[in-house]
Amino acid sequence: MGTSEAVLQVLSGANPLLFNSATCSGNLDSTFPSRFLYKYTKKRVSRYKRLFNCSSTLQSDLGLNRLKGLGYGLSGCREVNRLQLLSCKCQQAESVSGLTAEDGNGTWFVDSAKKLNLNSVANTPNILEFQDVQQFEQEKKSFTSNGAAGTTIDSVSKATVDCLEDEAWNLLRDSMVYYCGSPIGTIAANDPTSSNVLNYDQVFIRDFIPSGIAFLLKGEYDIVRNFILHTLQLQSWEKTMDCHSPGQGLMPASFKVRTVPLDGDDSATEEVLDPDFGEAAIGRVAPVDSGLWWIILLRAYGKCSGDLSVQERIDVQTGIKMILKLCLADGFDMFPTLLVTDGSCMIDRRMGIHGHPLEIQALFYSALLCAREMLAPEDGSADLIRALNNRLVALSFHIREYYWIDLRKLNEIYRYKTEEYSYDAVNKFNIYPDQIPPWLVEWMPNKGGYLIGNLQPAHMDFRFFSLGNIWSIVNGLATRDQSHAILDLMEAKWADLVADMPLKICYPALEGQEWQIITGSDPKNTPWSYHNAGSWPTLLWQFTVACIKMNRPEIAARAVQVAEKRLSRDKWPEYYDTKRARFIGKQAQLFQTWSIAGYLVSKILLADPSAAKILTTEEDSELVNAFSCMISANPRRKRGRKNLNQTYII
Amino acid sequence: MGTSEAVLQVLSGANPLLFNSATCSGNLDSTFPSRFLYKYTKKRVSRYKRLFNCSSTLQSDLGLNRLKGLGYGLSGCREVNRLQLLSCKCQQAESVSGLTAEDGNGTWFVDSAKKLNLNSVANTPNILEFQDVQQFEQEKKSFTSNGAAGTTIDSVSKATVDCLEDEAWNLLRDSMVYYCGSPIGTIAANDPTSSNVLNYDQVFIRDFIPSGIAFLLKGEYDIVRNFILHTLQLQSWEKTMDCHSPGQGLMPASFKVRTVPLDGDDSATEEVLDPDFGEAAIGRVAPVDSGLWWIILLRAYGKCSGDLSVQERIDVQTGIKMILKLCLADGFDMFPTLLVTDGSCMIDRRMGIHGHPLEIQALFYSALLCAREMLAPEDGSADLIRALNNRLVALSFHIREYYWIDLRKLNEIYRYKTEEYSYDAVNKFNIYPDQIPPWLVEWMPNKGGYLIGNLQPAHMDFRFFSLGNIWSIVNGLATRDQSHAILDLMEAKWADLVADMPLKICYPALEGQEWQIITGSDPKNTPWSYHNAGSWPTLLWQFTVACIKMNRPEIAARAVQVAEKRLSRDKWPEYYDTKRARFIGKQAQLFQTWSIAGYLVSKILLADPSAAKILTTEEDSELVNAFSCMISANPRRKRGRKNLNQTYII
Repeated sequence: MGTSEAVLQVLSGANPLLFNSATCSGNLDSTFPSRFLYKYTKKRVSRYKRLFNCSSTLQSDLGLNRLKGLGYGLSGCREVNRLQLLSCKCQQAESVSGLTAEDGNGTWFVDSAKKLNLNSVANTPNILEFQDVQQFEQEKKSFTSNGAAGTTIDSVSKATVDCLEDEAWNLLRDSMVYYCGSPIGTIAANDPTSSNVLNYDQVFIRDFIPSGIAFLLKGEYDIVRNFILHTLQLQSWEKTMDCHSPGQGLMPASFKVRTVPLDGDDSATEEVLDPDFGEAAIGRVAPVDSGLWWIILLRAYGKCSGDLSVQERIDVQTGIKMILKLCLADGFDMFPTLLVTDGSCMIDRRMGIHGHPLEIQALFYSALLCAREMLAPEDGSADLIRALNNRLVALSFHIREYYWIDLRKLNEIYRYKTEEYSYDAVNKFNIYPDQIPPWLVEWMPNKGGYLIGNLQPAHMDFRFFSLGNIWSIVNGLATRDQSHAILDLMEAKWADLVADMPLKICYPALEGQEWQIITGSDPKNTPWSYHNAGSWPTLLWQFTVACIKMNRPEIAARAVQVAEKRLSRDKWPEYYDTKRARFIGKQAQLFQTWSIAGYLVSKILLADPSAAKILTTEEDSELVNAFSCMISANPRRKRGRKNLNQTYII
Repeated sequence: MGTSEAVLQVLSGANPLLFNSATCSGNLDSTFPSRFLYKYTKKRVSRYKRLFNCSSTLQSDLGLNRLKGLGYGLSGCREVNRLQLLSCKCQQAESVSGLTAEDGNGTWFVDSAKKLNLNSVANTPNILEFQDVQQFEQEKKSFTSNGAAGTTIDSVSKATVDCLEDEAWNLLRDSMVYYCGSPIGTIAANDPTSSNVLNYDQVFIRDFIPSGIAFLLKGEYDIVRNFILHTLQLQSWEKTMDCHSPGQGLMPASFKVRTVPLDGDDSATEEVLDPDFGEAAIGRVAPVDSGLWWIILLRAYGKCSGDLSVQERIDVQTGIKMILKLCLADGFDMFPTLLVTDGSCMIDRRMGIHGHPLEIQALFYSALLCAREMLAPEDGSADLIRALNNRLVALSFHIREYYWIDLRKLNEIYRYKTEEYSYDAVNKFNIYPDQIPPWLVEWMPNKGGYLIGNLQPAHMDFRFFSLGNIWSIVNGLATRDQSHAILDLMEAKWADLVADMPLKICYPALEGQEWQIITGSDPKNTPWSYHNAGSWPTLLWQFTVACIKMNRPEIAARAVQVAEKRLSRDKWPEYYDTKRARFIGKQAQLFQTWSIAGYLVSKILLADPSAAKILTTEEDSELVNAFSCMISANPRRKRGRKNLNQTYII
């Protein structure tokens, strides 16, 4: 009782600090680090056993030098309040962690953790996770010594910024999830004050990407390697909804480390990975982007670590091919773009992005390019590689030609004839000029342009979607001119797309009846909130890569500066609301990992722009040649199956 | 000049008759029949040669007995004005057709046809078609002797009705299209007064289905056999848009018989079939339903003719498998329903039916059942048949469970909780109760129900779509109770769904901003017109099959009676407009073949209900067993690829 009372005092003492942290407040407590965060489960006895099995493994893995280093990392900096909170909770735990490492006897330590009244955490049953805070003294050096691009931060604010980065790293490490003692991913959000967990206690594939990139850039490859190999394992799960299974290549949206009783032994447990392919997701949305991101991360891992053994493994090669097989499967569609349902990517709720949304196409293009780089040449994959190359050419033509819009093109659409039945129709998709939304006529700058959000028969989604546009720069799906024009537009529309927090996920919001009809009156996607033109700090990292690729890093640096003013103060929210991103999002989680990781990746890349190469892809000459050849070829060739000149015998 | 003046006199004399034809006016002209309708092309010399090559072939194919019979078919009946029109134009032609048949010298005849000022026809370049009117004295007997179901037509109106059927048969035969002398399909619309041809001069796969069924029921199997085999040939065309090809199994939306110069010979030509897979279609819509209808027609052909040799052919078996392969290909989707773009079926323009529209699912289910019946058992197809069976079970569960709506279910949705993240969520698709449209609350009858139009994440399309519901009765995708409930609803909502002309394609119309947003302001799909709740007489035939299957043919008979009042008088329009179908559709083609054929099929089936068996399918016990087994099985099984209990070695 004495212990928990003491903790309560500390906790209540910490509360007033929650919104009071603009400056570095010095070395708070060198003994505090939140060495472990517990989420313990019903079956306590067995869990604890397991925990300490894992715990021992982990500690020996990490080596004692790391444990010894605990307590330094934050010297000279204000510690984020949340960590302060945790550090208080964990003081007792930390004081025995040395013991645990030595003799593996942590019972006391767990019991005292139980007494700590961590309700928000303890309310999550059937979960067992623990995180590790590590030491990183070299950070500031590596962040700032490589020549940051065009930022004008004075020495005082620079110190603040360095603290921010330290804080972000601490939070990122805090969000690490372990499986049998090895780091395997990062939890989606790690807010101890939130009782509304929903599925934020999972490792999301798409959310882990910036975490993974941050770890790669930091030289910490293990977590990324583990993530890649474990999610690969999940790819082959049988995933069903009402006895229907999607393709075997589908990657889950997320997974959870779950501790379950071992068969036939009531006291023993094991850890299992429990994926969600959309069967449990709200609205049953299948995550089409997961596999595409997985391929992109796999390539980045190889590029960054130099370790090509992972991508060369047979199981990894098979995994790549399974994803490609799903994407390249013959379909009914006349378009080379991937056909998906609404909400199958970062926007994972109904938002009118069914069909051929730009984000999916951009990721698809990247995945094709990355896979081509990594696929081992062998007899069996010749067909696949041929299909892949054909698709690359057709896809880039289609997007560059039909998704691109600028003032000139808009005027062309405005004058379209409709109802053209022919092979050489100008208005191929039968777009009615009335569809040009009034806001766009004013909004389109004289200089600049962008790729529209979606293209369907008689339907252009004229909204600007940030991720799709940015990623089309990163991978060269947009031409060089188009890429610059997209950045021109983003600069010209800074007040709409960045304003008080980068970056609007899309612009503008669906409002009124349009919101009712297109979102189905989704109360989470109200105008200028969440997916409906909310602002997402995580998009900073992709934006930074795009700016660096086009040799205009100063634009990204400016956005980072905007973000830095608020991110930590606001506790790293998932998203911001309102037209100018003035509010923290209505239902935004705090300490959202990808907001943290996105910021870190931006900072690291701006400090060392050449590192962005692990993410960018260039159009190769082979592709350019194929492109021009195929475009000039007769589009109406016949297949070989039957010679139509021959009389057909019935 | 004399000839054309005479023709003009006749034409102007015929005009006042156009809207004056409620009764049989007797035998107008026994020498008139529109033996050939020319659409001649630029390369005249060679075309004419070809024409007469074909013409000779045709006539010898048909046999002289048919030629001799010309001039009888309409005795005792008012001839439709359009035929009268044509007969006038063609008097000269007819008078030499005997000569042509004998000596193949038709130059004069073509030249005089040229003089006839048939602008509307002559304006269509590059087309060469000719049609044949055939004799059929036995019709009335076979139509009326088999015991019509529950109609109460007195003898006077019965005579009128018989005339109607004769007229319809004449028109249907008039619409036949020939390829190298053999009938191969029917033209979509055959209105000589229309100059707006667009693509109505093609043979549409979906439009031919009622024509094909009518010919089958009439014992005329050749045209159906030819159609099946020739469209099969087109399946293997290389179809591309901007160098992207859809799957090889895709069937075209339509094709055209085109005459082209023979290579290396300026004076010689050949006929070729020129398919459209959506590459030329307005809006570039791929016709997903074509292949599904093709399979349905193939089975009906075998059932009706007893000739199983067609479906047993290796190329036909391959064709079936190619279609199945496209449909059953692994995808990202969590649903067993087929994912398609907007406008990929009978509603072939943007109407908000993207995703998983009911019509496609119903046809898909039929195609699976029919294919299973026809696929030859062989080692190579075991996997395909397994996949097919699994899909049948999953699909029927999904539609019956999640698409079904009645008052009870509606009330359940009204009370849904939202944002459920779990495997056993009740509101699996996260439907917001606000999505229940106000009209539906009033519209849903106490007795009855229907399958909704579409189901997506967070999206139910509550509109009633006739074809999807009707066809789900026909193939047993709906349960027996659901099937009766659908018919109950259609009876209860007769004034909305039938009114002055059966059958509304969907109900209600999209209006106002909803129309703007969902159709993209499509001027053809204005409220209560065309696809947007227009009324389509062709749907009569499917409706009749459904009513007969449920042993309630009197409902269909009542609808046919409604149609009979106007169809001929209005010149067999493609569709009707307004809430109660009072107007002939704004841009409706006249003499639309599937309006004609649909009516005929209804009549034949009502006269001989047992013949509907060639179209219906029953749920077999094997399927029912599989259904209950799979539903009760654990939905979260693991695949065999890796045993997750084993430690995963990285």
